[in-house]
Amino acid sequence: MPQAVIAIHGGAGTITRAAMDANREREYTTALEQVLLAGQRVLADGGSALDAVTEAVRLLEDCPLFNAGRGAVLTHDGTYELDAAVMNGATLDAGAVACVKRLRNPVLAARAVLERSELVLFAAEGAEAFAEAQGLELVAPEYYFTQARHDQWVRARATSGMALLDHDAAALAAQAAQAGAVDPIDPDNKFGTVGAVACDAAGNLAAATSTGGVTNKQVGRVGDTPIIGAGCYADDVAAVSSTGTGEMFIRTVAAYDVSAQMRYAGLSLEESARRVVMEKLPAISGRGGLIAVDRAGNVTLPFNTEGMYRGVARVGDPVNVWIYG
Amino acid sequence: MPQAVIAIHGGAGTITRAAMDANREREYTTALEQVLLAGQRVLADGGSALDAVTEAVRLLEDCPLFNAGRGAVLTHDGTYELDAAVMNGATLDAGAVACVKRLRNPVLAARAVLERSELVLFAAEGAEAFAEAQGLELVAPEYYFTQARHDQWVRARATSGMALLDHDAAALAAQAAQAGAVDPIDPDNKFGTVGAVACDAAGNLAAATSTGGVTNKQVGRVGDTPIIGAGCYADDVAAVSSTGTGEMFIRTVAAYDVSAQMRYAGLSLEESARRVVMEKLPAISGRGGLIAVDRAGNVTLPFNTEGMYRGVARVGDPVNVWIYG
Repeated sequence: MPQAVIAIHGGAGTITRAAMDANREREYTTALEQVLLAGQRVLADGGSALDAVTEAVRLLEDCPLFNAGRGAVLTHDGTYELDAAVMNGATLDAGAVACVKRLRNPVLAARAVLERSELVLFAAEGAEAFAEAQGLELVAPEYYFTQARHDQWVRARATSGMALLDHDAAALAAQAAQAGAVDPIDPDNKFGTVGAVACDAAGNLAAATSTGGVTNKQVGRVGDTPIIGAGCYADDVAAVSSTGTGEMFIRTVAAYDVSAQMRYAGLSLEESARRVVMEKLPAISGRGGLIAVDRAGNVTLPFNTEGMYRGVARVGDPVNVWIYG
Repeated sequence: MPQAVIAIHGGAGTITRAAMDANREREYTTALEQVLLAGQRVLADGGSALDAVTEAVRLLEDCPLFNAGRGAVLTHDGTYELDAAVMNGATLDAGAVACVKRLRNPVLAARAVLERSELVLFAAEGAEAFAEAQGLELVAPEYYFTQARHDQWVRARATSGMALLDHDAAALAAQAAQAGAVDPIDPDNKFGTVGAVACDAAGNLAAATSTGGVTNKQVGRVGDTPIIGAGCYADDVAAVSSTGTGEMFIRTVAAYDVSAQMRYAGLSLEESARRVVMEKLPAISGRGGLIAVDRAGNVTLPFNTEGMYRGVARVGDPVNVWIYG
C-alpha cells in the first residue's frame, strides 16, 4: 500500500522575489501549509483521495490570496465567472461547472455534479440552479471581492483600452513597460488557478481544480480548468491538476496526456509530466505548470514559469511548500 | 501525398430498419451524399482539411434531419442550446462554442473563435456577442424548430414527469414500455450529433463537430461536442469527431485517445479507434461511435450502437454512405 499523499498548487506565473516581501511570502506559505495539513488529515483519517482533494480545493477557494472562489479575478465587465472540476480516478467519474457567478465553492458544485447527476459539465445558470437544489451555499458577487484583484482589473482595463488593436501580449507588455505601467498581462494572476491531487492509502487517485479565470477576460471565456483532460484528470495511472495559459492546456489535452504517456509509452510520472510542461506546452507558447501523482504515491510538480505556489504532504511526514523555481 | 478524403457522421444510436421506411432512408442517404459531395469539392479544389470539415458541418447544421443547427433537439425548458467545435491538426489551433441559442451555424462561430480570438472555448451570451461582432448570422429560436423534435420533446417530458425520482435509464425505459409509450430515452436522438474529419492533399488533418445536445436535457448541460479531446480533436496523427453518450466520451477523453494510442503505443488508426469505441467506452457504459482519419488518408468509422449515419468521399472516387451496422 502506498503512503497516502496530497499535493496542491495555487497557480503558476511570474512570481518574482522582487515583487514579494517577507510578510507577503509568509502569508502564502502559511496558507499553503494550512491547506496541506487539512488534506493530510483527511487522508490520515482514512478518507478517500476524492475527499482530500475536494477539501483542499474548498479551502483554497475560501482563501482570498488565490484566484478561485473568494479572491477571484474580475471579467472585462467587472463580474465574476468561476470554473471548477473534480475527477475520481477509481471510477472515472467526473463533475465540473463553468461560468458560475453565485456559488461560494464551485468545487463543491463540481463534486455534486459528479455524485448526484448524470452530467459531467454544467454551465452558468443551470449549474447554479442545480447547486442551489443540492443545498450548496450561494453568495452575492461582493463575497468574491478583494481590493487587490479589483485594482488589477482597473489597470488591465486601462491598458487594454489603448491596445485593442494589438492582441500580441509581448507588444502589450512592451508598451506598458514604456509607459511605466504595471504589466497589463500580469502573468502571476493570469495563470491563477488552484488545484489538488491525491493518492489515498488504497492507491486510488483523484484531482480537483478551481479558478476565477483570467483578469479582464471576456465574459463567457472558459479555460482549461473545467475541461476534463485539460485542467483536471484522474484515472488509475495518474491524477493531474493544471495551471497556466488555459487555451494551450486545452489544445494539448495536457492533464490526460500525462496519464496517456505513462500508460501507452511506459514513461515514468516525472518524465511524462516533464514532456508535457517543458516540451509540448512551450511548442505552442503554453506557460504554466501542473501537479501530478501516480498510484505508487510518486509526486511531480513541474512548471515552465518563474514560480508556482505548491506543496506536498505525505501522511506521517512534515508538509513542504515552495514558491520559486 | 495522400488522396484527400473527407468522412462525416450524422449521429449514432438505435437506428433500426423497423423504424425506417424506404422514403425516410432515402432522405438521409441523399442528405449525407450531398454533404459529402460538397466537402469533396472543397478538397478537390485544393481547399484545406479545415475548410472541408467546416463546410460539411455547416451543411449538416442547415439540414433539419440532423440534431445540430436547424433540427436541433429541445432542452427541458423547451429552448435550444447548441455546441460546436473545430480543430486544425496542422497547428493545434482550436475553437468551440457552448450553450449558444441564437446562432444559425455554431460551427462558423467555432471557426471564428479559432481564427479571430485568443480563446478556445466561448460559452453562452459571450459567444453570441462575439459571433455577432464577427458578422455571423443570428436567428430566432423558431429557426431551429422541427415538428419531429418538438413531438419527441413532448413525449420525453411526459415520461420523465412520472419518473423524476428514478434516474435509472433502464427502469425508465421499462416503465415506458409497460405504459406503451415511446422510449423516453430515445437513443437515436440522444446520440444525435454531426461531425466531419478530413485529410487534405498536403496531409493536414482537421475535425469539426456540432450538436443540439440531448432531448429534454437540463439547461446548461454541456456534452462532449465542444470539448477538445472528447468530441473533437485533430493533430498531425489523427483527426476525430465523436457522437454518443457525451459524458462517457468526456470521461474517456475519447477523441484524443485515438491519437494518443497511435502516437505512444504505435497502434494503427483502426485498432486505436476500435479500442476506444469497443472497449474503453463500453467499460463505463458509453454508447456511440466516432469517425477518424490519419495523415495517410486511412479512415475508420466504428460504433457500438445499431447504426450510425456516416459516409466517406475520397477525391476522385464515388461517395459512399451507410446507416446500419
